[in-house]
Amino acid sequence: MNRNRIENVMKRTDCDALLISDPIAICYLTGARLYPGERFLALLLKKNEAPKLFLNTLFPLKPIEGLETVSYSDGDDITKLVSEHVSRDDVLGVDKDLRARFLLPMIKARIAKEFTDGSLPVDKTRAVKDEKELELMRTSSRINDAAMERFKGLVYEGVEEQEIAAQMLDIYKELGAQAYSFPPIVAFGKNAADPHHMPDDTKLKAGDAVLFDVGCVYEGYCSDMTRTFFFKKGPNEIQRKVYELVRKANEDAAATVKEGVRLCDIDKTARDVIEQGGYGKYFTHRLGHFIGIEDHEYGDVSASFKDLTEENNIFSIEPGIYDPETLGCRIEDLVVVTKDGCEILNRYPHDIEIIG
Amino acid sequence: MNRNRIENVMKRTDCDALLISDPIAICYLTGARLYPGERFLALLLKKNEAPKLFLNTLFPLKPIEGLETVSYSDGDDITKLVSEHVSRDDVLGVDKDLRARFLLPMIKARIAKEFTDGSLPVDKTRAVKDEKELELMRTSSRINDAAMERFKGLVYEGVEEQEIAAQMLDIYKELGAQAYSFPPIVAFGKNAADPHHMPDDTKLKAGDAVLFDVGCVYEGYCSDMTRTFFFKKGPNEIQRKVYELVRKANEDAAATVKEGVRLCDIDKTARDVIEQGGYGKYFTHRLGHFIGIEDHEYGDVSASFKDLTEENNIFSIEPGIYDPETLGCRIEDLVVVTKDGCEILNRYPHDIEIIG
Repeated sequence: MNRNRIENVMKRTDCDALLISDPIAICYLTGARLYPGERFLALLLKKNEAPKLFLNTLFPLKPIEGLETVSYSDGDDITKLVSEHVSRDDVLGVDKDLRARFLLPMIKARIAKEFTDGSLPVDKTRAVKDEKELELMRTSSRINDAAMERFKGLVYEGVEEQEIAAQMLDIYKELGAQAYSFPPIVAFGKNAADPHHMPDDTKLKAGDAVLFDVGCVYEGYCSDMTRTFFFKKGPNEIQRKVYELVRKANEDAAATVKEGVRLCDIDKTARDVIEQGGYGKYFTHRLGHFIGIEDHEYGDVSASFKDLTEENNIFSIEPGIYDPETLGCRIEDLVVVTKDGCEILNRYPHDIEIIG
Repeated sequence: MNRNRIENVMKRTDCDALLISDPIAICYLTGARLYPGERFLALLLKKNEAPKLFLNTLFPLKPIEGLETVSYSDGDDITKLVSEHVSRDDVLGVDKDLRARFLLPMIKARIAKEFTDGSLPVDKTRAVKDEKELELMRTSSRINDAAMERFKGLVYEGVEEQEIAAQMLDIYKELGAQAYSFPPIVAFGKNAADPHHMPDDTKLKAGDAVLFDVGCVYEGYCSDMTRTFFFKKGPNEIQRKVYELVRKANEDAAATVKEGVRLCDIDKTARDVIEQGGYGKYFTHRLGHFIGIEDHEYGDVSASFKDLTEENNIFSIEPGIYDPETLGCRIEDLVVVTKDGCEILNRYPHDIEIIG
């Protein structure tokens, strides 16, 4: 149980009760790791009451101090079960991912006065990392920095993208991580101009850009970084210009990050740099995304996301230019918002680097 | 587009419109393979109207004859979009898995007169396989039979369960399948008495039971079979009795299968055999589950599932006895319901077999 996190959630909501069904959110708030598949699992939070976990008896759980478990069996009436713990006068905030098969019968039985999407307070609490999470995020990115150094050593003339990708998980594990945070992107040459390219049998040749967009999970927390190298030969003049634009977009955006700025304005700083350089139409995605237990969490660094940063938010800054005729290039770091600036979690340098 | 399947769905529902959001069901009905993650995807079915697919512009789809696509972009109002195609007088059946974040705003905006769980007609249609599906299910199980023959050859004194499991996918691929239908169960000795044992570092020794519960995916369709062998030494007298009870439970149950019988009665036939043999308390799970595109689909062969079989239903018959002191044993086949009996998809024999 993490009482602080639960308190922070309840501070952020006007609902009388919250019914959280996302297993990751439940683990974040209680420490209970449960993945009951099709079966109903939910955490009920009410002000001044102990949290209650609705759990099928098929899934054993060691007692967690302060958490009450409401057990049920296959065939039991879920609506009735929940109704016994919710008042008909309550405004009930339900998980944004609660499924119709559970929600519709609750609405029909009018177990609460009003039903509303109750996920935002949980998502916004998750977006503010506590000390323990900050340490894990730092370690995860430190491993990612070390891994990037190792990945460079895998390149040689004629190697396929997928051959390199296939070796990355073992390297992460040697460095102390447990898993990928997402399937790694390895892109050579023109493939680097596709932001979501999946590693294939493309062979590496001199002069190619080599883009690695990679991350690992360390004790439940994700890293995510991109670097773009050049194989054997340095960039030509125009490629150098593109690379430096992306680098400037990354660094100028990071320089604007601090508590209380609009996330859309951070995006705009990076976008303005690239637009003024004449490559605006080749920067085709948002500047970044929030990250933590999941690689993509609630929160965007994009033109449409007007929220203010909060201290200890963590998100990516990942401008890119994707011009198949010239260069595909992205430089991505994770940053932690501080009171008067930011801590950049990735230490791998931004300089143009020729590898191989 | 599969007009027959869509017609069969609409025959089974009283709703004016169905809003299907499960990507597998959408693929089954239209042929469109789309996995848009967090973004809204839904197929709207109405009697006497062309099916409409709500799809984010980020996901390209080749035109499908007879299917109308309603495109939207990130930031568009999903509720408004859907409301333009649903009448406020409609009873709208929504997917059992439709998420609260999409469903609640539709209910609040009263885009339909009534909202109800509309998945059953789709699930029941999927449970009746058409000719093309029957052929794919047959091939998938034929590959599984051949694979079982190969898996036997992997055993030797001291081999670990996980070492055998690690070789199975390559064998399936050599035989023409594309993937596992579920992670294979390999269980030696006492481990076979745990119905959901995951392969670990247990080493094989003479006299052990060797249980393989395995299946593959062939062109989108699943197989699933279990056999229990003995390594080096045959079963002792009491083990033989247990094995033969399980075999009789399997074969007696299969003999009762035909169109129009209650699924709970098929379960009872197998359960009675094992109970009369004195091992009732060691048969701890339902007799079987429906199967097709997914390894576990809607429909049970269990005491609580009173539905009648329909022609071309496919489900597993998998009685087991799990007595850690004596033997863990399960024998599982897939069967297709016919008008006056059943077609057993697995041809691998049920006889006691000593391997290694």
